[in-house]
Amino acid sequence: MTISETARWLMERNNFLVLTHKRPDGDTLGSAAGLVRGLNRAGKTAYILFNPEATARYTTYVEKHWAPDGFVPSCIVAVDTASKELFPATGTDYHNRVDLCIDHHPSNTNYAGLTCLDTGKSSCGEIIYALLLALNGGLDAEAATSLYVAVSTDTGCFAFANTTADTLRTAAALVDAGAPIGELNRELFRKKAKSRVLLEAMITASMEFYFDGAVAIAVITRGMLDKTGAGENELDDVASIPGAIEEVVAGITIRELAGGEVKVSVRTTPLVNANDLCARFGGGGHAMAAGFSLYAPVDEVKKRLLDALSGIFPLSAAQ
Amino acid sequence: MTISETARWLMERNNFLVLTHKRPDGDTLGSAAGLVRGLNRAGKTAYILFNPEATARYTTYVEKHWAPDGFVPSCIVAVDTASKELFPATGTDYHNRVDLCIDHHPSNTNYAGLTCLDTGKSSCGEIIYALLLALNGGLDAEAATSLYVAVSTDTGCFAFANTTADTLRTAAALVDAGAPIGELNRELFRKKAKSRVLLEAMITASMEFYFDGAVAIAVITRGMLDKTGAGENELDDVASIPGAIEEVVAGITIRELAGGEVKVSVRTTPLVNANDLCARFGGGGHAMAAGFSLYAPVDEVKKRLLDALSGIFPLSAAQ
Repeated sequence: MTISETARWLMERNNFLVLTHKRPDGDTLGSAAGLVRGLNRAGKTAYILFNPEATARYTTYVEKHWAPDGFVPSCIVAVDTASKELFPATGTDYHNRVDLCIDHHPSNTNYAGLTCLDTGKSSCGEIIYALLLALNGGLDAEAATSLYVAVSTDTGCFAFANTTADTLRTAAALVDAGAPIGELNRELFRKKAKSRVLLEAMITASMEFYFDGAVAIAVITRGMLDKTGAGENELDDVASIPGAIEEVVAGITIRELAGGEVKVSVRTTPLVNANDLCARFGGGGHAMAAGFSLYAPVDEVKKRLLDALSGIFPLSAAQ
Repeated sequence: MTISETARWLMERNNFLVLTHKRPDGDTLGSAAGLVRGLNRAGKTAYILFNPEATARYTTYVEKHWAPDGFVPSCIVAVDTASKELFPATGTDYHNRVDLCIDHHPSNTNYAGLTCLDTGKSSCGEIIYALLLALNGGLDAEAATSLYVAVSTDTGCFAFANTTADTLRTAAALVDAGAPIGELNRELFRKKAKSRVLLEAMITASMEFYFDGAVAIAVITRGMLDKTGAGENELDDVASIPGAIEEVVAGITIRELAGGEVKVSVRTTPLVNANDLCARFGGGGHAMAAGFSLYAPVDEVKKRLLDALSGIFPLSAAQ
């Protein structure tokens, strides 16, 4: 559906419950908060389904919109969520009854009744911004702030490859509408907790290089989190650490989760398709940023990744 | 002078020599290259005065515009340079004959014949962008690229407090005009040499915290440089590493030089005067960034620094 079709669909309905994805980032939470605020201003009742994994970094922007106990929604809307497997535990009941999905991931599985997908947008927040302009309520400072969180975090403060001229124009419009850019940038990008700085150093020190340095793999163990005192809040964007090295064309982080699960994040240059690589492991995402989860020991995951990568780097042997 | 007055002044003249400041950053060099390209497109002869301190990071954008031997300028224009003391060694001859200064620093000393100053702009590049629109030649991809370098580096990729909605709109317009944002952001902000990344991790891991975490001291040994392969190029701004931690009010690096000399760099918040601290060791600098050198073992230097700091932090004991 186009933006205007989606806006019309929303305006014809009421009592919305907005779903975010598990391990929620700034884009899914900021998009949800912006959409709910926009719907409220258009005279609608709308809430965000409580996401138990929302971190302190983002709860400020969303907690006032958590759905109250007993709220019975008429419409279920998912934001920034490419497949129904990505809903948090609280979203299980809604797996097969998502009415509308608003997303920017090329890997979107088309699981919802209706889908408003624009893979050319940096972030779901950029789509919600366009949508709010098409709703009757317009954009106030609160919605602009939530959407600035969404757009700025998903683009690494406009430094990632997904940033376009439109992204910058959207951000400018959000600032004009009242998003306090100085405060938000300090909070989201310039301030670093000691535990985060120490964790980054450990992640960097753990890196192993393969294929003549073209692939860097870092492991984030539970021990590292214990030792540095880093919590979920300090894990934001750690996946970008190995890929920041100039020679690296595929930067991979393997993170130990609870219960034997590992989360793999892949960041690439245009030379390697991250989505294709992760699809082999049942995951997905974007061409230059994708991921997957597995229940397997770290060493086995590493071996399987290197096997898959050896098809992409056939000319060099793994070191 | 306003933008349109400045544009008119430039259009009425020819044979421009553009001066940049010493220890040149992306803003002064990008602004100079953008201005020269804009003047060229408006049919003017214009060059940049060679700046011997320009680093590899920026020479790509400026070197083609260095003034050839024997060029005799009719007009001297300085960009992003607040006072004539800030010109590089090559600019000595021009100290008292700058016809026009284009700048955004509130500290501008009004040393030029005419001044186009806008302290509300994030960067000098943002002013040059407006100026180029007012010149006859308009903006092409080359000028847009140079100005994107200027604006993005002076705002830390739009994360610093000087970033405004206008800054973001200017950046969007530069991207529309052909600045290759993905490539430039990777080059300027996302790419780090492997040796630098490994060195940063080692420096961070070496940090010791004192006075309830308010002071962080990192040691950069010659062994770390040998082990990571980091050279002078990779030591840029390493002094800022300990001070980036949010709780730290004095971040100190002690670097081993050849022959038993150590170089100490101090970065502080406004709570501690770095210049006063370094003056006790025969050094100096600015209130929030200063340094000194000594011939002494690292441990002795650390002890003497902690003694000096205990006068500033009298309420906590060194840990």
